[in-house]
Order: sequence, then C-alpha cells, then structure tokens
Amino acid sequence: MTISAILSDLDSTRSYREELYKFFHQHPELSLQEFETSKRIISELESYGVESIQRIGDTGVVAVISNGDGPVVALRGDIDALPMAERSGKEYAAIGATQVDNNTGQETPVAHTCGHDVHISSLLGAVQAFNSHRELWNGTLMAVFQPAEETAAGARMMVEEGIVEKLSAPDVYLGQHVLGSLPGGAVGTRVGAVMSEAASIEITLHGKGSHGSMPNLGVDPIVLGSAIVTRLQSVISREIAASETAVLTVGSFHAGTKSNIIPDSAVLQLNTRAFSKDVAAHLHEAIERIVRSECAAARCPEPPEFKYYDQYPLTSNDESVTAHVRAAFDEFFGENSVDLAQVPASEDFSIIPDAFGIPYSYWGLGGFADHQNAPGNHSPAFAPDIQPTLDRGVEALVVAASAWLVK
Amino acid sequence: MTISAILSDLDSTRSYREELYKFFHQHPELSLQEFETSKRIISELESYGVESIQRIGDTGVVAVISNGDGPVVALRGDIDALPMAERSGKEYAAIGATQVDNNTGQETPVAHTCGHDVHISSLLGAVQAFNSHRELWNGTLMAVFQPAEETAAGARMMVEEGIVEKLSAPDVYLGQHVLGSLPGGAVGTRVGAVMSEAASIEITLHGKGSHGSMPNLGVDPIVLGSAIVTRLQSVISREIAASETAVLTVGSFHAGTKSNIIPDSAVLQLNTRAFSKDVAAHLHEAIERIVRSECAAARCPEPPEFKYYDQYPLTSNDESVTAHVRAAFDEFFGENSVDLAQVPASEDFSIIPDAFGIPYSYWGLGGFADHQNAPGNHSPAFAPDIQPTLDRGVEALVVAASAWLVK
Amino acid sequence: MTISAILSDLDSTRSYREELYKFFHQHPELSLQEFETSKRIISELESYGVESIQRIGDTGVVAVISNGDGPVVALRGDIDALPMAERSGKEYAAIGATQVDNNTGQETPVAHTCGHDVHISSLLGAVQAFNSHRELWNGTLMAVFQPAEETAAGARMMVEEGIVEKLSAPDVYLGQHVLGSLPGGAVGTRVGAVMSEAASIEITLHGKGSHGSMPNLGVDPIVLGSAIVTRLQSVISREIAASETAVLTVGSFHAGTKSNIIPDSAVLQLNTRAFSKDVAAHLHEAIERIVRSECAAARCPEPPEFKYYDQYPLTSNDESVTAHVRAAFDEFFGENSVDLAQVPASEDFSIIPDAFGIPYSYWGLGGFADHQNAPGNHSPAFAPDIQPTLDRGVEALVVAASAWLVK
Amino acid sequence: MTISAILSDLDSTRSYREELYKFFHQHPELSLQEFETSKRIISELESYGVESIQRIGDTGVVAVISNGDGPVVALRGDIDALPMAERSGKEYAAIGATQVDNNTGQETPVAHTCGHDVHISSLLGAVQAFNSHRELWNGTLMAVFQPAEETAAGARMMVEEGIVEKLSAPDVYLGQHVLGSLPGGAVGTRVGAVMSEAASIEITLHGKGSHGSMPNLGVDPIVLGSAIVTRLQSVISREIAASETAVLTVGSFHAGTKSNIIPDSAVLQLNTRAFSKDVAAHLHEAIERIVRSECAAARCPEPPEFKYYDQYPLTSNDESVTAHVRAAFDEFFGENSVDLAQVPASEDFSIIPDAFGIPYSYWGLGGFADHQNAPGNHSPAFAPDIQPTLDRGVEALVVAASAWLVK
Repeated sequence: MTISAILSDLDSTRSYREELYKFFHQHPELSLQEFETSKRIISELESYGVESIQRIGDTGVVAVISNGDGPVVALRGDIDALPMAERSGKEYAAIGATQVDNNTGQETPVAHTCGHDVHISSLLGAVQAFNSHRELWNGTLMAVFQPAEETAAGARMMVEEGIVEKLSAPDVYLGQHVLGSLPGGAVGTRVGAVMSEAASIEITLHGKGSHGSMPNLGVDPIVLGSAIVTRLQSVISREIAASETAVLTVGSFHAGTKSNIIPDSAVLQLNTRAFSKDVAAHLHEAIERIVRSECAAARCPEPPEFKYYDQYPLTSNDESVTAHVRAAFDEFFGENSVDLAQVPASEDFSIIPDAFGIPYSYWGLGGFADHQNAPGNHSPAFAPDIQPTLDRGVEALVVAASAWLVK
Repeated sequence: MTISAILSDLDSTRSYREELYKFFHQHPELSLQEFETSKRIISELESYGVESIQRIGDTGVVAVISNGDGPVVALRGDIDALPMAERSGKEYAAIGATQVDNNTGQETPVAHTCGHDVHISSLLGAVQAFNSHRELWNGTLMAVFQPAEETAAGARMMVEEGIVEKLSAPDVYLGQHVLGSLPGGAVGTRVGAVMSEAASIEITLHGKGSHGSMPNLGVDPIVLGSAIVTRLQSVISREIAASETAVLTVGSFHAGTKSNIIPDSAVLQLNTRAFSKDVAAHLHEAIERIVRSECAAARCPEPPEFKYYDQYPLTSNDESVTAHVRAAFDEFFGENSVDLAQVPASEDFSIIPDAFGIPYSYWGLGGFADHQNAPGNHSPAFAPDIQPTLDRGVEALVVAASAWLVK
Repeated sequence: MTISAILSDLDSTRSYREELYKFFHQHPELSLQEFETSKRIISELESYGVESIQRIGDTGVVAVISNGDGPVVALRGDIDALPMAERSGKEYAAIGATQVDNNTGQETPVAHTCGHDVHISSLLGAVQAFNSHRELWNGTLMAVFQPAEETAAGARMMVEEGIVEKLSAPDVYLGQHVLGSLPGGAVGTRVGAVMSEAASIEITLHGKGSHGSMPNLGVDPIVLGSAIVTRLQSVISREIAASETAVLTVGSFHAGTKSNIIPDSAVLQLNTRAFSKDVAAHLHEAIERIVRSECAAARCPEPPEFKYYDQYPLTSNDESVTAHVRAAFDEFFGENSVDLAQVPASEDFSIIPDAFGIPYSYWGLGGFADHQNAPGNHSPAFAPDIQPTLDRGVEALVVAASAWLVK
Repeated sequence: MTISAILSDLDSTRSYREELYKFFHQHPELSLQEFETSKRIISELESYGVESIQRIGDTGVVAVISNGDGPVVALRGDIDALPMAERSGKEYAAIGATQVDNNTGQETPVAHTCGHDVHISSLLGAVQAFNSHRELWNGTLMAVFQPAEETAAGARMMVEEGIVEKLSAPDVYLGQHVLGSLPGGAVGTRVGAVMSEAASIEITLHGKGSHGSMPNLGVDPIVLGSAIVTRLQSVISREIAASETAVLTVGSFHAGTKSNIIPDSAVLQLNTRAFSKDVAAHLHEAIERIVRSECAAARCPEPPEFKYYDQYPLTSNDESVTAHVRAAFDEFFGENSVDLAQVPASEDFSIIPDAFGIPYSYWGLGGFADHQNAPGNHSPAFAPDIQPTLDRGVEALVVAASAWLVK
C-alpha cells in the first residue's frame, strides 16, 4: 500500500525525531518570539533537501514541495509555547526555561505545556517522509509552521505578512492537536464546529468615588460590577438554548484600594465561548446590553467601555474534507480512528484557510495511554507520552494528505 | 471674667501659634511615625515651662500641669497626618511632603488633610494659656497628644504602653475636631452617639480555579463574591431599622488575573459604621451569616476567612459632661455654640477615657467661613481657614476645661 | 386655672364617654362607608346643642362652635376602621363584626384596630367640654370628623367636596393619634417630619412566555422581577444617606401558573416611605430608573407599567405651632409631656390644612400602661386601655386648642 | 417484500382510519379520565378479532396477538389529551370540547394538542395490519394503549395495576411521537438520551411577616425568593458543563397581598430538565443547597419545604434496539429515515419497559409538510396533517416491529 511505503522510514527516523522533539520541548519560546524554534525548523527542512522554504513574518515558516500536477495540500503545525513553568516530572522537562517577554520586558518561565512541540516534530516528520518518497505521490505539499497560536496573533500575522499573496492557494488545509481527552494513539475527527469561537472583553465601569460612609454621594462601582456579574449568569441560563454549548466567564474583577473608600471604577475581564457564530454574536450583544442597562440603573456618570481582545474564530470542519480524512483514517488506523467531541477551547487555525477561501479539517491526536487521568492542555503537568504519539502524529498527517496526493 | 483672663494672651501669641501651625502643616507624618511632630511638641511644652512631660510609646506625649487641689481635666489632641498629597492651593501647603511608610518600605506622600495640625496647635495654645495663668484656676490639667488616630492604633498603643498605670485618672476627658460641616468659628456639641463605631473586615473567599471554559470543574469565586456583595445590600435595606444610621460598604473586590481563567479565590474589603453597639454587632453577625451561607450555596471547598482591622469604637458623649461643656460654650460663644449632627466618621478618642473608666465629651470646631462649600475631611483640598480657627480651637479647649477648673 | 375649668366635667361625663367609645368600637366601618359612625357623631353633637353641623361628602362631618372674636382652631379626628378581625380579647371586642366592602361586594371582617374610635370619642368629648364652658374661651372651634384615613382617601374627598369653600380657614389645624409606642397617658410632640410620606406602586413587567424548557424563546419575567427586587435593595443601602429614614418594600410578587411554563408577565407591588419630599422623590426616580433599566437588560418586548396609589403626604409639624402646643402640654401634663420619635407610618392628616394653606401640628397619645409590650397599630390585638386614654385624649385636645382660644 | 405485504391494506383502510382519528380528535379526554377513548379502542380491537384484550386500571388497555413462537414486541401509544382549547382552524377541530376535571370538579376545555390521537389511530392500524396478516410473521405482538402521559401518571398506574405480573415480558418496547420539529412524513431515530428527565418542585419559603415600614422586625420572603431565583441562574451557567443540555426554570413565584405588608411566606414552582441522571441529580442537589443556604443567609425562622411532583424519567434509547429499528427504517423509508435531535420535553414512556427490565426505543414522526413553521406540541394550533401522517404512523410501527417479528 502506497501510504505505508511513504511511512516506511518511521523506524529509522524514530530516534532522530525523538531527539528533535526533546530539543523543541527544552527550548520553548513565547508567542511571536519563536526565534530559535523557527531557525531549527528551517535548518531541518534544509537538511531534508526541501527546495522552497520561506519565512512569513519574523517566525512563521512555510515549506513547499512541488511534485508535479495534482492537488495542493497544506499541513499546519503551530510552534509557540506558554508563559508558565513545566511540572511534568519528565527527565527531559524544560526545568528553568525562561524568556524575556517582549511585551513586558520581564523574564518569564516558558514551557511547551500545550504540545506544540509534538506538532512541530510531527510536521517535520511528515515533510521528511513526503520528500523522501516523491515517487509515490503527485501534487504539492505545503507545510505551514505557524507562530503565536496561544495569543490568536500568529495566523493573523501570517495573513498580514502576505501568505495569501506569496503562495498559491492550497485545495485543502489540514492540522492536528495533541489532546489529553482522546485515548493514546487515537486520531479523532469531527464534522462541523470542533473548537469554539472565543473572545475576551475588558469592561471598564465608571462609578463615582466617595467616602465609604457616604455612598449616597457616589456611584458604587463594586455594587454595580457585582450586579453585572450576577445578571450575566442569566445569559447562559435563559437566553441561550439549552442544547447549545456556550460559556460566559468573568475571570477577573478588580476595584478599590481600601475598605472605606468607594472607588471610581471597576474593571471586569470576560471570556466567551460558543460553537456557532450566531451564539457568539448573541453573547456579545447580551453582555453589552446588560452592562449598559446596569450602568443606567446605577446612574453612572459615564458609559462603560468595552475592549475586545484575544478573539478566536470558530473552527468548523468542512463536511466533505473531513469525510475524506475520516475515510482515510478509518482505513489506516482501524479502531484508532474515533469520533472527536467538541473541544471547549479555541484555535486560530481557521484564519489562514479562511483567508485563502479554502476548506479545512482539524483533528485530535491522543497523547496519553492513561487518558482518563491525563492532565489537561495548559496544565503544568502536560507532557504527552513520546510514543506512540510522535509516530502517530507523522502518520496522521501523511495519511490525511495522501487522501489527496496519492491516487 | 476669669476665662477671658486666662485667654488674655491670644493676641500676643497669635503669630507664634500661626507659625507653629504652619510648621506642623508642612511636616506631616504618618501614623505611629510622628517623630518630628512629637519632638516639636515636647520642645514647645518645655519652652512654656511645663514641668511634667512624658512620652507614652514612641510618639505619644502627655503633659501635666498640677495646680493644687481640684478636678483633673484631660484635653486630647491627635497628631498624625494622612498618606496622600495635599492639593489645597494654600501658600503654606505641604507640597512634595513624603515619608517612607514603615509598614511597606515605600515612600509615600503625606498631608495634614484631616486638620490634626489645628488640634496640636490649639492644644499647645491651651496649655500655654493655663500655664501662664495658674493663679486663675485650681486642679490639674493633662494634655494628651495622641498619635495614630487615622489608623485607630494610637489610643490603643498609649493604653498598651501604660497611660492608665502611669497617670492618675482624670475626672473628665475632652477633645475636639475641626470640621467642614460646621460654620466657621462655631463650636458644636452633641449628647450621646456623635461618631460611629467602625470596623474593616477583609474576607477571603476560597473557590476552586478552573479553565474559563469549564466552570463546572471549579467554584467561581467571582460569581460568589458578586452574590455576596449583592446580598449584603439587604442588610441595610431590610435588617436594620430605617431610623438607624448604619453603613455597610464593600470598598475593594479583587479576584483573578485573566479573562479565561477562573481564579481560586477572591478578596473583599468591607467597612461598617453604626451609631450603636447593637447595630454594629448586628452588621457583623449579618455579614458573617451571609458570607458563610453564600459560600455554602457555592459549595466552597474551604470556609471563608474574616480578618477584622481598623476597628473604631463608638464615640458617645456623656450626657452630664456634655451638658456642662455646652453651658460653658453657650455662655462664652453665644450663638457660635451650636448643635452638632452625628458625624459619619469614626474616632479612637474614646479608647483612653474608657480605659480610665471616665466620662468624655468631644465637640466639633468649624473651620471654613464658606462651610457650605468646604471640602470634606480627607479631601486633598482640606485646609481650614487659619483664623478664627486657631484662636477658636484654643478658646474652646480653655472654656471647656475651665468649666471644671475655674470656680 | 381656666383649662381645668373647661375640663371640670370629665368625671361626670366619663361613663357616658366610655359607653360612646364602646359603641364605636363595636360598630367599626370601612373607609368611606362610615354611615352608622357619622350618624351617631351627628346625633351626639346635636345632643350637646352644637348649632352648626354639616356633612362634607357622605360620611365626613364638621361641627363649628362660634364663640366670639378670636382665633379659629380646627381639631381633627379620623373615624374609619380596618378590614380585619379583632383579637384583642377585650370583653367589648367587636367579635364577628363584618361589612360588605362596596369596592369588592364581599363581606369582610372589620375592626377598630388603629384606635380611631379613641379619636372620635375624644373629639366629641372636647367639643362637649368647649360647648359647655363657652364663658371660658373666645374664638371659633371647628371639629373635623374625617373618614377614610386608612385608604388616604378621606381628606382628599373632603377637599374635593369643598371643605375649603364651605368653611372659613382656621388659624391652626390640630390632631392626635393613639399609639402603642408612647407610655400610657403620655402626650408626645415633635417639630418637623413626624409621619412619613408614603406611596404604593404597582409595577407590571412584560416578558414573553415560553415553554419552561425553552427559556431562550421567551423573556423570563420571574428572573427579571427577581433581578429588580434584588437591585432595588441598593437604593436604600447606597443611594439614600444613612442618616435619612426611608423604606422601600416590595410587598407582593405574583407571576406564573405552572412550574414548566414561563409566564408573560409579573406584577410587583411596592411601598415607599420617606421623611422628606426630596427623599421620596429620589425613591420614586430610582425605582423607575432601575425597573426600566432591568427591563432593557432583559430585552422586554414592552416597557414596564407603573401605577401609583395610596399616596400619603408627609406629615411635618409646623415649628411655631408645635412649640405652642408643647408649652401648653408641658405646663398641664408635666412629665407626661414627652418627645415623640418619628412614626414609621403615614397619615392623610396634612391634606386638609395644606388645602387651607394653614399650619398644623399632630401629636401622639400613649394608649397602653405596659407600652413596652403593647401591640402595634393594625395588630389584631390592638385595643388601648380605656383609661386614662379616653380622658387624656379629651384633655390633650382641650389643652392644645386652649393655647389659642384661652387668653 | 414481507413488510409491504403486511401493509398492503393501507389504501383500503385509509378512510376508516381517518374517521377513527377524527373521532378521537373530537373526543379528547383528560389524563386518567380517558373513558370514551378506551371504550372505543376496545371496540375497534374487538372488531379486528383480536382475542386477548384487557384493561389495566380504569383506562389502560393492552391487546395481545399471540402468533406462534418468536420474539415478543410491545408497541405503545399514549391516549390522553390536554386541558386547553384547540385553535387549529381545522374543520374537524374539537371546538367547545370540555370535560369535568375529577381533581378540581371544574369543567375545563380539552384538546388533542399533543397528537396522542395520531398515536392511537396508528397503533390501532398497526394491530389491524398484523392481525390481518398473521401468516407473514411469527411471535407475539403486544399493543399498549397507555393513559395519562401528560401527567406522568399513566405508565406508573399501569405498573401499579400489575402490567408486569399480568403479562409476559416483551423482548423489546417500541413507541413513537408525532412532532412538529421533523419534516412531514419523516421518521427520526436517536441512540441514547432522546427526551429529558424532568421534575417539578414546589418550594415554600418561610419568612416572617411585618409591616412594610419595619422590615427589620421581619424576614422578607420576597427579597429571599428573589435572591434564590437570581442565585439559581448560576447552576446552569456555572455548575453544569456547557456541553450538557439542562434547564432550570422557575415558572411561578407567588408572595404577598399588599404593597405595605411583608408577607410570611413565598411559594416558588421550579421545573428541571436534564438528559442524564447525573445532571438531573446535580440540579436537584444544587437547588436544595442554594435554597437552604439562602434561607440561612436570610435567618428564616423555619427551614424551606420541598415538594417534588410531575417527575418524568429519562428516555434513553437502547443502542442495539435503536440500531435495529434504524436499519429497518433506512431500508423501508430511505431518505425519510432521519436523525432525531434531542427533544426538550419529557415522557413517561420508559417506565413500563424499565418495570419489565427490557430495552426500548422511541422515535419521532414528522407531522407537518411545512415543518419549519409548524406549531409546537401543546400549542393551541397543533394539529398534524392527516396524511401522510396517519399512514406513516402505521408504517413506522409495522416496519419497526417487523424487524423482530419477520424473518
């Protein structure tokens, strides 16, 4: 079978790929600061003999293998790490890894606690496999090493830096994420909404300060903020259909400095998640409606301010593309090809295919043999089993891309 | 008339007293750090020839003039300033005054925006007057220069440092406060509760952190804290009789760091004020009841923590002592002797007379000709008219004390 | 002394007055349905020989004794009872008393549980005393027997029926109320606000019905109403100065018929009380502001409706008139002349003097020897001690009126 | 094909079945009062020559056709109507239909606005078809005509009346419901939770009454109830995973009689829905926890009371049985065999198979050609298209049962 032939070097490249993984794991870098990471990616691609390698922005990398007429398939791997300290207990853990955050000027711990190092290693392995076996397939393989997924900034940056203008549009855009929620070694697919639309909103409430003993001379922003947080609970409980999956969290509430001084203002930070654009739009309309109404109820001297940030689009897998991937997975992986439940997290994966105007599919990759007790992504303990995860990550990319590239 | 004779040097000492006032105004010092202030007080007392001067604690000062048999009258002046910048626009404003706060190690602006500099100057003037005219009165005058009124710590400190053991109990304890709420030059008296019992409470709520998209795995302390703030409003609106004067303010609410992370805990800072001990006790019982109940409603993994601080006792003027003072004021000041409404603020004034087991009276001193537009105490603009305030402050102390010391 | 002479028949009329009281007590009548009551009042007035007696409206009665030049003093007594059953345990209790309510057509229990029967008897006694001793005073005495105080409708009715046009304006308008809160036999006076401004407001909230399982298709008026009730607590706790006496109660909340049907609407009934017109106005503005804002927050399809009813004016005693009454009381009653605290209830007493444009004073009459344990007005157990209450009620009216009528 | 043969009389019976349907439609009867309905069912069954017909309870009917060895298949149809007036506009509408409700003694309008008349007619048609073609199948057909689905009382009644003891256990229990949410003529199947567990809870809150001006003497049950309703919103928004479908509605809130009287108590009626037993249990635990905690916060003199009623079990289709039904539907109905989404309503369907300890499947039957604009079940306008609904209802029952009965 052709796909097995493309993957025939997995045994011989295994120790190389595991070393590569450990290198990325031990050199985690913050979003848009993936300098060493992208340098190493490029040097590996060069070592494979890939002829077209280009940077998009400072740390984005796209490699293209043009192999005759045929479909153009893009495979995406995200490459950034998180500002936190790893506590996985692995011998190869990135103990003490830090980086100066360019936004704050502060040195901060950094760790690959979301598994993007698996994504890089897998994508390099897939490129290596396709490059080594050009005789077995036809078309074009594009490997997109995308920075800054964690801040929702990397895909937008690559679009702003001209990825659409610089490259021909692929026919399909594929990607994967290692997850604690799937059985180890499994690949999970899903048609339609798979990861949520998400947004953060910072709301500044303007009250009127006063001595704590004279609330009647002020407008208490803490009572106001509390009324808002309380009232917002009814958005999910009453305004959104029970069958929808939607979340509205107020993750931060800060106001005041002393017990006996009513402050001038309060600042709330909200996060919303939804699996449809209509629901996301409803959440934002409801938040603004309720906040403005409560400010009116409180007779605020100035209207509230809303600042949206960290906005992630909906990731909604194309039905036809996903069916094609699923059929290939079912055939190759057998019962390791499973259904993926909606993931209550978000991705900027869809931004590039949406910019190209092409369909996409995004699947999950099981990372832990004992997945019932696996730490969640972003947990300090998150570090997938190296195998079969690294092999399966290469296989999944090759199998999925071959559904187009191999006749 | 004898009192007028005791006060006969007011004209000749006026410029001295005004210079003294400006010195204190320009050298504001934080609570329990009134080092220069107490040093200057002692040097002035020594210049008057007062024979008994002692420190109580680092910055408390008590001067005693023993003048034969007769009543013992204590006069109290508080001496500390506030951690804020003055914006009075006065030419003698304490522009740029700062001090290193011994609690935080941070340099902070300091200002006499509560008028304690008036109190010091007036009390020194009264001591000077009584000392210069010993032939006109009989008994003992005790002048208590008390630190740290602003943090409710100074009177307690003087009690802990043995004021009761070191000095004979006075028969009566008298004091005054310059206020923006009285007409300039007026002295205002009131029987019974005049300043509120007050307390601050820091409440730590223990929720359970979670990713913002999975609130069901956590216990959201921001929703909990908001429910508490909202529910606490019903204490004043429903549990306390409408005819009582009581306040419950949540001055500070802090929880969380990011929009999409549900934090582990929230910290609220509350302030309560009441004009009766029963009401104060009810407020605290209600706060603990509601907070504990809401934590139970939220299924908190740990009980809430309550830390009481900045606790001010009720200031409730003795009926007989106050009537005696009022009669003297009526006679001396005529229509400048007025009724004082309850002041929605608190004092540690009563702690020392309560420790001695003696009755007290505390009156207000008008500080602004245009009192309708006067800034409130603790406003950055608070700086009383120098005159007649400084003269009236001396007069009020002398007139009140003479009600006992002059036959 | 002249006043004692006017009152010299109290002993001889006592048993007559007690029988009269028991008659009214046992014949309680609803507001604006005081038919038997007013008939008996008129027949008693006729028996005294009062020459001018007129009905104002169906059940209002005004008697006038013109006794030469001099001040015109109006004395007011209210005459209606309450729709409730008496449970006083008195042998003369109105057991089983009922009346058909003309508004509802329903037979309802009725009782004098607010003491208006004391007021009628006392006012008749005072008229009898002044009428019998015309030689001892000069001027005009006007006795106003006012219906429907309990519904705030009677004084308005007498104004609408032309009391101002039909009678010359008195110089002063005086009245009293028997209270459980004063010591038995005491008369209590107060300058300024003595009884609160009050209003009731029925608020209809328009949501949108839906099946209970599909709240997203509706607008839940129960969640909305609850948010409003909760939010309204902050009006008293935050918007009104702590030193003000103000109450905002939601006494009725009705919505829905079944657990699993979200209703279309909810109806709230609110009651407000304040001791100043500014505070009352603020309460109403705040209620409308908060209700409208919460309806906006809830995206109500129609605006809320506000219906004001049972509106009582502020009862605020004239300073000069009250000082005059107090001086007379102090002289006649000695230590039984006491201070009256603000009464947390409301009256339509002021409507008639305000219509005349004349000053008024309204005092309290102690009704229970054991006043610490006295039932409150409107309690089913409310029935004052017959004596000294009935005598003191006559004395108070005669003493107060004599302050103008006797030189 | 055998199934088509069993269904070969559909054309010839059509007008009979439509008349039968109109009879039931025009003779709607309340739950447990289906006297005429069950009488007509029995007479039709007798006319088919069914040999075993028995009543279970007053209005339950079970017919059994024993046709040799083979599987035992139970088909269930529910037969009761709703206490409401029909407004379908159909010429055969049950205009003016009423019945005296045995619970209340009141005459009430009644209508088949949930489509149970379709269920009866279809089940009779299926019995007729199987009875007429005994040569084509083997085994036993049991037809269960179940009363009182609308009150969740009928299936329980049949269990209490001994259905399990009186009849041999079937191998499988099948049923259907006509729905507005499916395309007309479609049959929709679903594995697992298909209709929700539901319960109603009446909660009585015990406050303490007081005059509206003296809330401090009472415990306000309206503020308490409002706090509870508000706080309960956080159960869905915070305690239940966003991916779960669960609803908590407060459908009724009643307290108080007058604006100025704080009542003694408040009564809330809640309804819960969940698609898993764990979620349902969590909802009930959370409701009791929050209500009890809020009562503690409010210092209620007595604990709250909880009365559960109208409790519906979860309807969760057996995976294997449903797969078997689905395969048969796919083959017979082609693209009219569709997926059914979870229905946000509840059923007592599962009570009888659970009592027997047997698996079940329950499917939906599309009833309206224009299903996008179809009225919901329980709408006064709900009346399905007669055809193809009545034919399809027979077909679905026959096709599903034949999956066991026809080899």
